[in-house]
Amino acid sequence: MTRTLAECRVAVVGMGLIGASLCMDLSRLKLCREVKGISRSSSSVARAIRTGVVDQGTTRLLSGVAGVDIVILAAPVRAAIRQLAEIGPSLKDGAVVVDMGSTSSAVVRAMEELPATIQPISTHPMAGKETSGFDSAEPGLFQNATWVLTPLRRTRPEAVALFTELICAVGAHPVHMEAAKHDRVVAAISHLPFLVASALVQAAATASRTDAEVWNLAAGGFRDTSRVAASEASMFLDILMTNRENVGAQLDEFIANIQYLRTLIERSDEETLVNQLFQNRQTRMQWHERYNARRRPAT
Amino acid sequence: MTRTLAECRVAVVGMGLIGASLCMDLSRLKLCREVKGISRSSSSVARAIRTGVVDQGTTRLLSGVAGVDIVILAAPVRAAIRQLAEIGPSLKDGAVVVDMGSTSSAVVRAMEELPATIQPISTHPMAGKETSGFDSAEPGLFQNATWVLTPLRRTRPEAVALFTELICAVGAHPVHMEAAKHDRVVAAISHLPFLVASALVQAAATASRTDAEVWNLAAGGFRDTSRVAASEASMFLDILMTNRENVGAQLDEFIANIQYLRTLIERSDEETLVNQLFQNRQTRMQWHERYNARRRPAT
Repeated sequence: MTRTLAECRVAVVGMGLIGASLCMDLSRLKLCREVKGISRSSSSVARAIRTGVVDQGTTRLLSGVAGVDIVILAAPVRAAIRQLAEIGPSLKDGAVVVDMGSTSSAVVRAMEELPATIQPISTHPMAGKETSGFDSAEPGLFQNATWVLTPLRRTRPEAVALFTELICAVGAHPVHMEAAKHDRVVAAISHLPFLVASALVQAAATASRTDAEVWNLAAGGFRDTSRVAASEASMFLDILMTNRENVGAQLDEFIANIQYLRTLIERSDEETLVNQLFQNRQTRMQWHERYNARRRPAT
Repeated sequence: MTRTLAECRVAVVGMGLIGASLCMDLSRLKLCREVKGISRSSSSVARAIRTGVVDQGTTRLLSGVAGVDIVILAAPVRAAIRQLAEIGPSLKDGAVVVDMGSTSSAVVRAMEELPATIQPISTHPMAGKETSGFDSAEPGLFQNATWVLTPLRRTRPEAVALFTELICAVGAHPVHMEAAKHDRVVAAISHLPFLVASALVQAAATASRTDAEVWNLAAGGFRDTSRVAASEASMFLDILMTNRENVGAQLDEFIANIQYLRTLIERSDEETLVNQLFQNRQTRMQWHERYNARRRPAT
């Protein structure tokens, strides 16, 4: 049963930003025997075929995954969970089933219900942008991204090796992590930033009712701090609803921090305030330096 | 006393990001008769002269501003306020005195104390980045930026026209605004985003004590949402301390918003949550479209 990626038929379910970008890489780099695109939207399927992003496509999930070696779910988390509940009986024996969602614990629970021969891995590429859909897809999206892998206890090492081959081939860096830890970490570095950006836009909107000039003066700082607020709301609803506890804990931590800064400003406690701002600045600069170093191609 | 910009001697006080970038534009575009750089740091002055960013330079504020037609203060707000208290007796009759700080009301109060013949204008170019200092300076920094002007009641129209000529010549767009409104608006679109970014970094740092992987998984979303947290802490201390009331009001509004989102998540009130996220998304997308349109050079 040992297969190489080049021998595999691969189906990607979901032709949005993530799914279509992955298909682009699989196709242009000729990484596998066949790339199949599955989407509820017949126009997305037609477009993926027409543009050569996939070799074939279908709107039918169950017949689509039949006979495929690697099934990759690239839909919002709760859609992927529904798909996992449906596809079991249609899957080929020994098929590798992978999701690319933003939370892991709920997906792992759904994967545990798959037939015993199926090889499930919950995964999460740390790549994306605030825009969504086929139009936003681009080749090379996963280049230099960290890609988290959470195999189930029963998942065979060969299956993990096979998908790791794919991760490396699209230029990403595989990192193994258990589901609970993954979900705590992404609450801090992805779900909290989204909520903060959204609440920031809401505050600016409120301010603009008194001072319409808010929108004329907003510049680069507001642009970057608010960028992820433009993310698909329904996609984030799925994320937040499948990671409520961790998101709640991160929100509490963040609210305590911002209230602390507010108190220091109110008290004009300049020394404590500037020290805290300076410490956060150093933390951010150190992280950013490492982040840039990681993303620079080795020479 | 009507002068054109080309006839003027200009002194810029402060050779950091903003001051040095402005000198670069004044010099390379040959906008005035002479550009003088004034900085407490003799190495910054020497460097500005060596690189041709200024025609001459000095570390002495009082002799530096003597005989100059336009004095531009490009120091942190409270440093500019101290300088305003000192330079009055040294200024040439009829000199235009401008600051480029991030809050306006406190600067205007200091400007009111200048000798009667002096023509003061509080201004604020909505341009910058999270890095600071001479090394970060660049020509064209103000291209397409909105540049807020707050003349005092006594400031003559010719003085405002003269500085408007400079604003337009460096490619920025002048906007008149009273000090109180300016300070309310920047609290919403600049000071609040900074504090939010800083508190976000602090939350990630706390999370990293349990899960060091936080720093490996943080990617583009965290990068952008946290960018302005890397801004100079002492510069922001001046800003926050001269705009405490407005910053406090914006923080209250923001905290209420984020607590509201937290409650909706906790209650799993999906419909209200997704509607609010969607509304914030629309607001951000509409602003961003207008912002991009404004920054695209006319063809």
